[in-house]
Amino acid sequence: RQRIATFPIFCMQLIWLHNKKTLKSFAVWPLPQTFISSSEQYRLNPQTFYFGYGMQSAAQPGCTVLDSAFKRYFSLIFLDLTSGSVDKPFSVEISPLSVKEYHRYGRASLNAQTVWGALRGLESFSQLVYQDDFGSYFVNKTEIEDFPRFQFRAILLDTSRHYLPVQTILKTLDAMAYSKFNVFHWHIVDDPSFPYQSRTFPDLSAKGAFHPMTHIYTQSDVRRVISHGRLRGIRILPEFDSPGHTKSWGKGQSDLLTPCYNGGIPSGTFVSSVFPDSYIHLGGDEVDFTCWRSNPDVRAFMQAMGFGGDFTKLEAFYMENIMNITSALNKTSIVWQDVFDYHERIPKDTVLHIWKGVPAKIKEELSRITKAGMRVLLAAPWYINHISYGQDWRNYYTVQPQNFSGTEEQKKLVIGGEVCMWGEYVDATNLMPRLWPRASAAAERLWSDEQQTSNVDKAFPRLQEFRCKLLRRGIQAEPLYVGHCKHEYQGI
Amino acid sequence: RQRIATFPIFCMQLIWLHNKKTLKSFAVWPLPQTFISSSEQYRLNPQTFYFGYGMQSAAQPGCTVLDSAFKRYFSLIFLDLTSGSVDKPFSVEISPLSVKEYHRYGRASLNAQTVWGALRGLESFSQLVYQDDFGSYFVNKTEIEDFPRFQFRAILLDTSRHYLPVQTILKTLDAMAYSKFNVFHWHIVDDPSFPYQSRTFPDLSAKGAFHPMTHIYTQSDVRRVISHGRLRGIRILPEFDSPGHTKSWGKGQSDLLTPCYNGGIPSGTFVSSVFPDSYIHLGGDEVDFTCWRSNPDVRAFMQAMGFGGDFTKLEAFYMENIMNITSALNKTSIVWQDVFDYHERIPKDTVLHIWKGVPAKIKEELSRITKAGMRVLLAAPWYINHISYGQDWRNYYTVQPQNFSGTEEQKKLVIGGEVCMWGEYVDATNLMPRLWPRASAAAERLWSDEQQTSNVDKAFPRLQEFRCKLLRRGIQAEPLYVGHCKHEYQGI
Repeated sequence: RQRIATFPIFCMQLIWLHNKKTLKSFAVWPLPQTFISSSEQYRLNPQTFYFGYGMQSAAQPGCTVLDSAFKRYFSLIFLDLTSGSVDKPFSVEISPLSVKEYHRYGRASLNAQTVWGALRGLESFSQLVYQDDFGSYFVNKTEIEDFPRFQFRAILLDTSRHYLPVQTILKTLDAMAYSKFNVFHWHIVDDPSFPYQSRTFPDLSAKGAFHPMTHIYTQSDVRRVISHGRLRGIRILPEFDSPGHTKSWGKGQSDLLTPCYNGGIPSGTFVSSVFPDSYIHLGGDEVDFTCWRSNPDVRAFMQAMGFGGDFTKLEAFYMENIMNITSALNKTSIVWQDVFDYHERIPKDTVLHIWKGVPAKIKEELSRITKAGMRVLLAAPWYINHISYGQDWRNYYTVQPQNFSGTEEQKKLVIGGEVCMWGEYVDATNLMPRLWPRASAAAERLWSDEQQTSNVDKAFPRLQEFRCKLLRRGIQAEPLYVGHCKHEYQGI
Repeated sequence: RQRIATFPIFCMQLIWLHNKKTLKSFAVWPLPQTFISSSEQYRLNPQTFYFGYGMQSAAQPGCTVLDSAFKRYFSLIFLDLTSGSVDKPFSVEISPLSVKEYHRYGRASLNAQTVWGALRGLESFSQLVYQDDFGSYFVNKTEIEDFPRFQFRAILLDTSRHYLPVQTILKTLDAMAYSKFNVFHWHIVDDPSFPYQSRTFPDLSAKGAFHPMTHIYTQSDVRRVISHGRLRGIRILPEFDSPGHTKSWGKGQSDLLTPCYNGGIPSGTFVSSVFPDSYIHLGGDEVDFTCWRSNPDVRAFMQAMGFGGDFTKLEAFYMENIMNITSALNKTSIVWQDVFDYHERIPKDTVLHIWKGVPAKIKEELSRITKAGMRVLLAAPWYINHISYGQDWRNYYTVQPQNFSGTEEQKKLVIGGEVCMWGEYVDATNLMPRLWPRASAAAERLWSDEQQTSNVDKAFPRLQEFRCKLLRRGIQAEPLYVGHCKHEYQGI
């Protein structure tokens, strides 16, 4: 939980009238849990504005995460001053009428239990600042108390079906922080390509990537992504999906795919040391038994193990093995919901990732899996790669993740949600406008109070304004409907 | 008609073996009418390569269109040398084995009846050139004879629902030339905003644009668009849609909208002198009679004219008036198909723009309107702003514009087609990836022989390769499916 009470940094009693229409409203997206604002305006002076640590604060200068966040948010707030790319075309600065000024030292205070909470508070504060037509910066007197509804607010990118340049991933992490997402689920490898350059098995990318030099993620790329995410309070959750979705693995590792489970399971240690997060995603979805069935060695092994002809038992055996490896590394497994269906001895701390089904079916699944005491992560309603004409963000906004039949205890087992951008039709050319601001609709659902954000029509103008803020920060967010932003996207 | 026979500019008998797999195929999109190519390869030397005018050519140095096209296509062909933005990451130049060289002067000749035909030929030639893995440029011995199936191959952009920066329009014109589109239908104004800055009625944009300074097209912007299009063989067809779709007009021109048709019709002369094209699009679609019906002055006028209560007669009267103005200016009118339905005395040279209906209905309309001897332009199957998940380019590719019941004479009245990108959900953030390469699918339908291009599966790898060429030229074209290009989009 974090508590933010903002008071103006610099005060000025304004006795000349603003054109109210030109003043941006001071909404925050996603909506804070409590938000009290007044019409009392204060002008910020970029020359003297600064972020500092409170006397009582456990964090002090030298705390990398906050030191760099202060610098970053200063730039985001005073974009005119810090970004060369933002011009003010045709604008003429008009001197205001004479103003009676009260220079008085002011301050905003932000209290948070963790540095990560402080990051969210800084984001909220940055969204409160607006400019009038003369270019002056203002903030209204505001009190916010805020905390997320769900602890797990993720975005999945798929770098196997199309390679995404590291810059594109970093830019996505930037935008995620603006919507208060906190987990980047990196679906890093899959059938079409294996871009992850492993230290232990370098042939996997040398032979399995689209190109062994230009279409890979080196160890240093991965470190960069992890560090960029960490500074923004975003965990990097890697997924090495198996035993399905592994065609690209076979190219660089002979004897891995055909004889199925035994022999070539990556030990897990190499992944564990690269990705520090306490969770790891093990996949486990959409296993096609045809290959296994065709292999006499596999069938013989199944007889020896007493599985008979039940390939789900073989799959369970495989998944158990890698979940045990994961546990031994002190990591928690996340697996796609398929694993629940055939698995009897699934570790109790495993998180099931719900990705299948129409709304009615999803409710049933949530009910069934949480009844077994398992934690779940909801992705199915947010397969954002499925595009359609019109305002489909409304569908993402109106999802009710805890609306299924079950006890209060069961509801609490929903740890969060995930926006999935699968890569069949997406690469760096179209990722940004497809992701933003559609993903932001889900972000509010995952962060904010459901009662306070139940009206999608009321959300519309707020999301429109937030989208303009994203544009202003250089995120290529597409329009929600007819209209314009003061600062349009200037790229081509 | 144009006839292009390309022979290599510089010849070199290659006695060392290429890795065949790495050589790009040498397809041209849209597919030429006749295309004979051999495996005989010739290497181009960028240091000595040049475009020149033939001795017999009517065009000679000083022909602006070709002079600038020569320069442009040199850059497009030798992108490595001319673009600072294209890097060759990690590549190491390996010296080839010793090569026996035959330096011999070669040439490609391109014969065209008009400079515009020559432009299309240059585009085809530029697509024939490819690079091997060592960076050398090659062209195969090729003979092409080519001409477009339809004379009118248009793209519509809508700059009223969202403003598009001039740079975005220019970039679109660049990409249009790569797919051999030749008409830019500029739906410049509509209900939401009036960005066109008129010399005669400057208030229309001062009050009707989203912003009077940043969201307008000045006279000089318009000249730039026209000139950029002309150099690429693209006509600029402006549309000032009325009497519907004019809400934004009323803000800057009082007494224009409420009293309906009389009084405030723009004279037409101001538009005519700015846009030199011989066609002008007058709109005429989706007129809502509610307003007219509510106005007693309108009803009185209708009585006086003998229209009774038939508002289609009033609309016809209005459209007749502006079509007459258009004729007096020696321009040909294009109008949306709605006009045909209520109009008895429609000028014979008017072009009807088909935008409504499901496939079966479209066929009927084509049949009915061409039976009346009117020319038609087909847009309905190519409303490309309607997005959906998956490979919808296949639908655009398989359109058969002349597949309706009618005589051969009627079929000839189909003068072409138009890809429409309406702007409700589109602005500069997402225009490029939505337009390309989906519009290119329609481009081949409009240019190439239908028999030769009837197989959409055969078109798929060709379009994938063409999409990579677009990326290489800096067009943010989205992927058709899983895969990669040698040179990926490097922007964010």
